[in-house]
Amino acid sequence: MSIPPPNFVEREFKEPLLCGPGPCNLGPSVREALTKPVFSPLCEQFFSALDDIRAGIKYVFQTKSNLVLAISGSGHSGMETVITNLVGPKETLLIATRGIWDERAYDIAKRLGIKTIVYRVPYNTTFTLEELERQVELYRPTAMFITHGDSSTGTVQNLEGLGDICHKYGTLLLVDTVVSLGGVPFFMDAWGVDAVYTSTQKALSGPAGISPVAFSARAEQKIKNRKHETSFYFDINLLAQQWNCYGNTRSYHHTMSPPLVWALRECLRQLSIETLEKSWERHAKTSRYFYERLQRLPIEFLVPNPEHRLTTVATLVLPNGYNYNDVVKYLREKHNIIIFPGLGPTAGKSLRIGIMGVNSTVAVADALADALADALQTLVKSSL
Amino acid sequence: MSIPPPNFVEREFKEPLLCGPGPCNLGPSVREALTKPVFSPLCEQFFSALDDIRAGIKYVFQTKSNLVLAISGSGHSGMETVITNLVGPKETLLIATRGIWDERAYDIAKRLGIKTIVYRVPYNTTFTLEELERQVELYRPTAMFITHGDSSTGTVQNLEGLGDICHKYGTLLLVDTVVSLGGVPFFMDAWGVDAVYTSTQKALSGPAGISPVAFSARAEQKIKNRKHETSFYFDINLLAQQWNCYGNTRSYHHTMSPPLVWALRECLRQLSIETLEKSWERHAKTSRYFYERLQRLPIEFLVPNPEHRLTTVATLVLPNGYNYNDVVKYLREKHNIIIFPGLGPTAGKSLRIGIMGVNSTVAVADALADALADALQTLVKSSL
Repeated sequence: MSIPPPNFVEREFKEPLLCGPGPCNLGPSVREALTKPVFSPLCEQFFSALDDIRAGIKYVFQTKSNLVLAISGSGHSGMETVITNLVGPKETLLIATRGIWDERAYDIAKRLGIKTIVYRVPYNTTFTLEELERQVELYRPTAMFITHGDSSTGTVQNLEGLGDICHKYGTLLLVDTVVSLGGVPFFMDAWGVDAVYTSTQKALSGPAGISPVAFSARAEQKIKNRKHETSFYFDINLLAQQWNCYGNTRSYHHTMSPPLVWALRECLRQLSIETLEKSWERHAKTSRYFYERLQRLPIEFLVPNPEHRLTTVATLVLPNGYNYNDVVKYLREKHNIIIFPGLGPTAGKSLRIGIMGVNSTVAVADALADALADALQTLVKSSL
Repeated sequence: MSIPPPNFVEREFKEPLLCGPGPCNLGPSVREALTKPVFSPLCEQFFSALDDIRAGIKYVFQTKSNLVLAISGSGHSGMETVITNLVGPKETLLIATRGIWDERAYDIAKRLGIKTIVYRVPYNTTFTLEELERQVELYRPTAMFITHGDSSTGTVQNLEGLGDICHKYGTLLLVDTVVSLGGVPFFMDAWGVDAVYTSTQKALSGPAGISPVAFSARAEQKIKNRKHETSFYFDINLLAQQWNCYGNTRSYHHTMSPPLVWALRECLRQLSIETLEKSWERHAKTSRYFYERLQRLPIEFLVPNPEHRLTTVATLVLPNGYNYNDVVKYLREKHNIIIFPGLGPTAGKSLRIGIMGVNSTVAVADALADALADALQTLVKSSL
């Protein structure tokens, strides 16, 4: 053999407390679910698991739509699916931009030959519905893309009423809820959202790699009647048949990942047992408690308006003289806690701290606040 | 809440012996690996796991190429990645067609605006290199797509020398090894293959959802200099940076799935420990033993030429009077063994039986042969 077998070195690895903007640690029952029996792609147990997942997705997105399923890929595959299925080449996508994920939407759309319009607000704020309406009225785009929570800036966008505004001008509303779903109220139908995707590794405490998506009746019409081709892998018309969205097909499209199907089902089951209201309340309460603890430290919020702050990810500003990367490194090495520095517009300007999913507890908030206090004291001392 | 939480019913489910053309059962250590610690996407442990996977992929594909990584998606995502990165709209793809997967390649290519040429042989045979050369010489396509093993027909294609033939006419050679890799000899570099993909849920005994790909230096040049855009999710130029293929980048592209990264690493580790030679030998030996057991039953091979038969998936013809679906159902209900009926060109014409990965043992071959004998006896009796 010209290429010999490699040697795999086993290294000790204790899972850290994952308090970056994602991924979160796994829920214990979700970790267990990963090892459940492998099913054959055409058996009843598999179909039941898919049905359970679809019921769970309808609940967590708060939608009666039947066109709900999960994409076999990361959150970015959800983003690409939503865009490519609803906006064709030479059609127009308005991208409401305040962070890094909107830049990704821009990149994805450009590659698809879509005309893009970028409307930007300062990264530490959010959009008013009035300014969004002016843009939609002006360009009358095929669709508007906006993130609900933005993990690069720590902001949450008010979406209530935005669907009606978009529909007045014949525009579809596409929403990213990767870092908000389960942690912050979201109502797909009531808010008139036409397409939404999320990911499992944030407030759902699941493994990345499988991404729920949902489409409104308006979006479904567009998908059924569209003239443009999509990628085979991301084609919702084919995926809807595999997921039996219309109750009459179980076609094979691609081989799904049994551990991820079981894990997503378990994430949705846990959230259904806790209920959305209680999960939102828990996230809000933990976040308030964490903010209170922060008041004893010389830390400020990057986002000035409390109403714009995202419950699941806080962006925090340190006093002059601290290096953000040093603090991140200190928490990792001394406390085995992962937090992140800024990204994109917030790089070098903030810490990004996520408390979500199974980690949204007083104990975790205390551990984080204690570790931050220790870091600020130790790192100042060492630089004296 | 307008959408109430659904009720998830738990059902007993004993994992069957999975002897269809895929998925295979998980290796015990692979199942364990699924629950290993979740890593943060920018930590050393994650980078080490990716490095291990790349070393393992080089070994199992037998290539010195540096452009090797895994796509976060099913085998079909590997197929789409290979095609879209190497063949642009209006360029030509010759598809050597003998089963269902070539039809998928055709569908994927058509959607991308690629000119396709379908060259077909009867489904129960394979191509001679001479006839393939005539097609390549005639059309001088940008690339040729061919499957190594075909799980819909149970055939294995001779590829030795095919790369040289393609390169003579400026054509790239793209190969699907989803159902062959690890079970049948494959030599990417020696055979002049320019792009190859596989999947984990066949002879690697892993979970679906993460798909190794590799590109030759010739393919790499094409990718670096291509004029056409690809999907963001499948763009090898970006993925190569995330996977550190050139040793100088660890860019974030998308969030990978920790359980699948650990599982793929473990699949590759197990194959490296056993060695490819021993794994190929084991698959060949089990297959010979299973065929010997079949000789005592009134069963024939769909593929007449023994040299064309795929070691990992056998396509078997039953005597007149048997219904293929009844036999499949009997094995599932009576023996908890999954086998498949025909698919595409072999639908209604054969059983498809996969003995691969951890299931490639005398014990499994015996269980299968016993179950088949029982089915043939019982089902005949009941129809007398």
